[in-house]
Amino acid sequence: MKKLKMGMVGGGSGALIGAVHRRAALMDGEIEFAAGALSSTKEKALASGRDLGLPEERNYASWEEMLESELGLPEQQRIDFVSVVTPNHLHFPVAHAFAEAGFNVVLDKPMVHTSEQAQRLVEEVEKTSVVFAVTYNYSGYPMVKQARHMVQKGELGEIRKVIVEYNQGWLATKLEDSGAKQAEWRTDPARSGIAGAVGDIGSHAENLVSTITGLEISEICADLTTFVEGRRLDDDANLLIHYTNGAKGVLIASQVSAGEENDLHIRVYGTEGGLEWRQEEPNHLISKPMGAPAQVLKRGNDYLCEEAKRASRLPPGHPEAFIEAFANVYMSVGAAIRARQEQAEPDELLRNFPCVYDGARGVHFIEKTVESSRSTQKWLDARWRAAGRHRQTL
Amino acid sequence: MKKLKMGMVGGGSGALIGAVHRRAALMDGEIEFAAGALSSTKEKALASGRDLGLPEERNYASWEEMLESELGLPEQQRIDFVSVVTPNHLHFPVAHAFAEAGFNVVLDKPMVHTSEQAQRLVEEVEKTSVVFAVTYNYSGYPMVKQARHMVQKGELGEIRKVIVEYNQGWLATKLEDSGAKQAEWRTDPARSGIAGAVGDIGSHAENLVSTITGLEISEICADLTTFVEGRRLDDDANLLIHYTNGAKGVLIASQVSAGEENDLHIRVYGTEGGLEWRQEEPNHLISKPMGAPAQVLKRGNDYLCEEAKRASRLPPGHPEAFIEAFANVYMSVGAAIRARQEQAEPDELLRNFPCVYDGARGVHFIEKTVESSRSTQKWLDARWRAAGRHRQTL
Amino acid sequence: MKKLKMGMVGGGSGALIGAVHRRAALMDGEIEFAAGALSSTKEKALASGRDLGLPEERNYASWEEMLESELGLPEQQRIDFVSVVTPNHLHFPVAHAFAEAGFNVVLDKPMVHTSEQAQRLVEEVEKTSVVFAVTYNYSGYPMVKQARHMVQKGELGEIRKVIVEYNQGWLATKLEDSGAKQAEWRTDPARSGIAGAVGDIGSHAENLVSTITGLEISEICADLTTFVEGRRLDDDANLLIHYTNGAKGVLIASQVSAGEENDLHIRVYGTEGGLEWRQEEPNHLISKPMGAPAQVLKRGNDYLCEEAKRASRLPPGHPEAFIEAFANVYMSVGAAIRARQEQAEPDELLRNFPCVYDGARGVHFIEKTVESSRSTQKWLDARWRAAGRHRQTL
Amino acid sequence: MKKLKMGMVGGGSGALIGAVHRRAALMDGEIEFAAGALSSTKEKALASGRDLGLPEERNYASWEEMLESELGLPEQQRIDFVSVVTPNHLHFPVAHAFAEAGFNVVLDKPMVHTSEQAQRLVEEVEKTSVVFAVTYNYSGYPMVKQARHMVQKGELGEIRKVIVEYNQGWLATKLEDSGAKQAEWRTDPARSGIAGAVGDIGSHAENLVSTITGLEISEICADLTTFVEGRRLDDDANLLIHYTNGAKGVLIASQVSAGEENDLHIRVYGTEGGLEWRQEEPNHLISKPMGAPAQVLKRGNDYLCEEAKRASRLPPGHPEAFIEAFANVYMSVGAAIRARQEQAEPDELLRNFPCVYDGARGVHFIEKTVESSRSTQKWLDARWRAAGRHRQTL
Repeated sequence: MKKLKMGMVGGGSGALIGAVHRRAALMDGEIEFAAGALSSTKEKALASGRDLGLPEERNYASWEEMLESELGLPEQQRIDFVSVVTPNHLHFPVAHAFAEAGFNVVLDKPMVHTSEQAQRLVEEVEKTSVVFAVTYNYSGYPMVKQARHMVQKGELGEIRKVIVEYNQGWLATKLEDSGAKQAEWRTDPARSGIAGAVGDIGSHAENLVSTITGLEISEICADLTTFVEGRRLDDDANLLIHYTNGAKGVLIASQVSAGEENDLHIRVYGTEGGLEWRQEEPNHLISKPMGAPAQVLKRGNDYLCEEAKRASRLPPGHPEAFIEAFANVYMSVGAAIRARQEQAEPDELLRNFPCVYDGARGVHFIEKTVESSRSTQKWLDARWRAAGRHRQTL
Repeated sequence: MKKLKMGMVGGGSGALIGAVHRRAALMDGEIEFAAGALSSTKEKALASGRDLGLPEERNYASWEEMLESELGLPEQQRIDFVSVVTPNHLHFPVAHAFAEAGFNVVLDKPMVHTSEQAQRLVEEVEKTSVVFAVTYNYSGYPMVKQARHMVQKGELGEIRKVIVEYNQGWLATKLEDSGAKQAEWRTDPARSGIAGAVGDIGSHAENLVSTITGLEISEICADLTTFVEGRRLDDDANLLIHYTNGAKGVLIASQVSAGEENDLHIRVYGTEGGLEWRQEEPNHLISKPMGAPAQVLKRGNDYLCEEAKRASRLPPGHPEAFIEAFANVYMSVGAAIRARQEQAEPDELLRNFPCVYDGARGVHFIEKTVESSRSTQKWLDARWRAAGRHRQTL
Repeated sequence: MKKLKMGMVGGGSGALIGAVHRRAALMDGEIEFAAGALSSTKEKALASGRDLGLPEERNYASWEEMLESELGLPEQQRIDFVSVVTPNHLHFPVAHAFAEAGFNVVLDKPMVHTSEQAQRLVEEVEKTSVVFAVTYNYSGYPMVKQARHMVQKGELGEIRKVIVEYNQGWLATKLEDSGAKQAEWRTDPARSGIAGAVGDIGSHAENLVSTITGLEISEICADLTTFVEGRRLDDDANLLIHYTNGAKGVLIASQVSAGEENDLHIRVYGTEGGLEWRQEEPNHLISKPMGAPAQVLKRGNDYLCEEAKRASRLPPGHPEAFIEAFANVYMSVGAAIRARQEQAEPDELLRNFPCVYDGARGVHFIEKTVESSRSTQKWLDARWRAAGRHRQTL
Repeated sequence: MKKLKMGMVGGGSGALIGAVHRRAALMDGEIEFAAGALSSTKEKALASGRDLGLPEERNYASWEEMLESELGLPEQQRIDFVSVVTPNHLHFPVAHAFAEAGFNVVLDKPMVHTSEQAQRLVEEVEKTSVVFAVTYNYSGYPMVKQARHMVQKGELGEIRKVIVEYNQGWLATKLEDSGAKQAEWRTDPARSGIAGAVGDIGSHAENLVSTITGLEISEICADLTTFVEGRRLDDDANLLIHYTNGAKGVLIASQVSAGEENDLHIRVYGTEGGLEWRQEEPNHLISKPMGAPAQVLKRGNDYLCEEAKRASRLPPGHPEAFIEAFANVYMSVGAAIRARQEQAEPDELLRNFPCVYDGARGVHFIEKTVESSRSTQKWLDARWRAAGRHRQTL
């Protein structure tokens, strides 16, 4: 199998998330790191590329140069896709330009700053039919896929309630004043957008609910807070949610929950039982059927659904974790790109990955949350009215 | 030490909570079960008393008879206190009558149906100075006392956020139609009051927050639901809360969270760290100081605060649980009654028990929650404006 | 129901285990504390009895006096049983004298010092047919009863392996030199017998295996250690075990495992799956069927066996713990005593309690462990060859 | 940084452990997969290499061909090291040949079949000074490094007791008859050596104790069992251990513990406290200081030792797992190889990896365990008397 050529925008030396993307993309040996414009600063971009062993001719000083040069290559030699891992404010221009030029795109979340930008990306993707993924990476965990499977099969009955939380504590102090790069841009509206905790992690929580349950939000009631004095964006968010099927939800996202690390945690309750999953112990999924013993389903076992098994690399008890889940997103994206190139159907088990519609819905969620938080009205209509299909691969 | 004589109203054969009260009260050998009017049905009352070994002359057919007869005894021979463990609608008349007659009272929660009744009880207690306890039994757990101690000592810094949940699943189906007595009255407005899940368990959650943090609610935004068709009271509640110090809260209470048993669970986050406690694993308290390893504090150890140690009966690793916590409420009540009788100060370590003010605040909380749920306005002022002192024993 | 009258030998003021026995015995209101000789020191005995509210005429100065006086009463007025909760060296003379006189006996473990004494007790019990219980209290936990049920039903297939541990750390330092009474006599051969950790807690571990699995030991290989300098008995024990059915076992008991509290923990593996139970989280039993998700069975649920349900007092999620398990032993003993008095069959669900045969087998196990530890030979025959029946209630 | 060129022997299509080695080696972008002789069957070897994208000229039909061809290349172009991931019986000839020819070697465990072979490898490594690693991969976990650090710093005081377990259930049935390749060779003495469970996973347990505590075994008493009828090697092992410092140990390894997955679990107790770590929850390390709350140390935090932090790729709460730990072994090996090539000192934080001495000690342990199991004598001297240095990098 010929490796797919990945280009990367952003993610230069020292950038946490760029390194994660590279490890995830390269993990299965089906993708190679072929080109990059790794920083918005020319010198840093080039130095980073050299550090990372990019060939000189594809170690670009800017994403514009990369786009132009790659377009100048014969189609077979071009990168097969670009991964955009910059701070949020660059997501739109970069992703739009590459998609417009016909490149497949992997874009970090939240997708863009505004619903208007989101809509333009959706239209571009519908026009060009490029593969376009948004790295809601937690959707890649095998036990998340198993949870979705169980909900879809009706094992929980009709869903009544969803409690999703994303508790972090790393911004409990004014870390952005200490020189910590990520804290700086995450709390800067110009680079991060209109929301802080909601944009960074609340959006993951929203996506996780959607991924597992397929529920659609009808109304929300949000309470955003900025606890750390002088911070310019929210660092704590609590929401009540109504879903269109009548289910009720609570969504909690905080970056000032001192002592917590990366506690993404979901509980789903239906008429027949409940499900619970925690990102910090990702190999386990707890099923709580009504009137029967709780079950602990564990990654890698034969009794799991096919899609969960396809997303595993190791036998039971040999834990997999964050990078492998991230790699699963890339694995699906790779399959979709190959299918597009070969005009074939992708592997049935790899069809689900977060796409431009998920990204657009996430931006909509962020905007509505901020709007609701500012309102004295209890319930805000937060329905997401996307035209056309909702999942790229369907 | 002479045993205190307990009279009981309600709690006849087959009543779960009556048996719990008796086991709790008798556990430490300082209280005896001396009299009772154990059912609202005369025959059942007398039969229950005989089953439970009450002396004939104090096995009463009704609470009115018990009140009259006991008052007719010389003061030394009367019961030292009455425990009222009837369905909610009888709480007010019984408790009020006994308090008015000068008897000390232990009353189950929620205290009464309305704030007006609550106010009348408060006034009666202030007038007569009887010892008046409301059995928010979860406050009796040693690790809850330890949590309060740590918050009071400032170990968490200033409190920013409180997440409290009380998840049950036992009413996920229409159990009240199956002949289950407790389900029947819990879902009957005439006997249970204006609220279902909120009244039964939401009130415990409210009390737990207050017990541990001392925070006072300023505003709430509530979303109550009745999921089970035909049920007449809410079976699910989700609240956003503002506390007067600026802290934010989420309170979740549900009796349709299928697969959950009695999952009362609290997390408190301050500027310096967090605390976590679960009722289903009550011997452990997790402390999460910022920037340091999490700690698991365990009941019975020397490193705990004096009040937590005083509330323990067994060495570390020999688990204590629900009944012992309940017994701790009775132990404090007993000490308060003896102190009142002897006009002495009670043991410093036994001074804290949930009292008439906690009961009144709980009733207020239930009323405001129902009111908020019906409102289209986001925030409802839910401040509890009690005149005078807030804790009976101070 | 007339309450059974309990007499107690030992367990005066300040004695941990005496208070536990009283709480356990009295918990269900079917037993009353009627008489006692609560210390080997006359003054302390009488003072303790007064503290605990014993009637003057049955507050005895010595167990000999108690035995004589009670025998002098009309049979109907005598105590129904005696609980012996002294240090180990008094177990034999007291228990033997009461049994010989026809009193039912509850005796703490380990039963006696030597197999010869054990045999004499067995013979006495067989002669007099008194009810004779040995308080291996951990056998009273509902989830232990559930575990036994599942093994007996064959849910694990044929048992291949048992790992049982009892890890404590309270004797990691030379606590016996600090004035701690229990540490003093537990480490004194004259009062404790030939073994330290093995006698005190290893015997509980042995009993737990026997209770749950019914397996019989054929050979053992023991390694006893005294880690704390100057201590006169072992404080750490590790054993390899062969069972007569071919199963293999590991038994670990330690009182110097610093940081552990009361970690009694058993895992049983059969050809079809495994079971796991921990005393410190006693409401849960983990079942691990081969090729299927692990299950967490929780106390109080309808899906448990009848005997486990009979041993529960509270609904699911309202945790029960150590004292309730201890009370379950007393509940069974009470049923057996009433059945003997009424010449009836006891409640089927209350038939199982640890009896004189369990006590004798435990003493044999302790002796063989010490013998093996001193031997250079690998395997020591440790079969327990009891004549006649093995369980009093069968 | 120039990537190191890895050659691989074994690990063709479908081989679990080969894929793990490749993912681990490639994860950090410092190693490339340059050459291979991926199967002992020529056709399978070549097909596998093509599947995995090896260049034609370095896709070898046999390891002998690979050795010869690589030696024929200019030194700069040769592979920098060979990873040997064949079944055990090929370990010795392949590793010895490559080491003799001056190639650095990464070899799977157990290192070889016999102590004599181990000794010859040790001598070869000492002669040629090649970097020689044995992939006791669990030593790569950051929290294992933290545990070692804490023991070395004396935080536990003097070590008294070590309980190590490796419980698996995958061989609870006669899987080797079902065509499962790994089960086949693992249970075949010709390919696996003289031991089954002890060789495959008992050796990991032995290494983990040594890695964390540095304790040296003096005597062992082993009980090996073959539970599955017709199996030719042990599938269950239980050992009592004496360490040279007076500490006592228990080592349990089983592949018939039905329901367990990959439960490698260690507890270390010293005079000041205990430590606990489980491979299935590898991001946590539990510290149990005597007389203080237990602590849960979590991967990725600043409070950990430098070596543990160096071995982490992600922030706290973003779990890392098996592959990352495996990659840490390769990271250290890579640093050692570069240091050798540049005649420099390796990064201080990367100096520890399991080397030829660990491998030799492991083989010795396996041999002594089998010998002890066959003996009627209780204690067998199992001291490992290696000449010279014990750690390649020291």
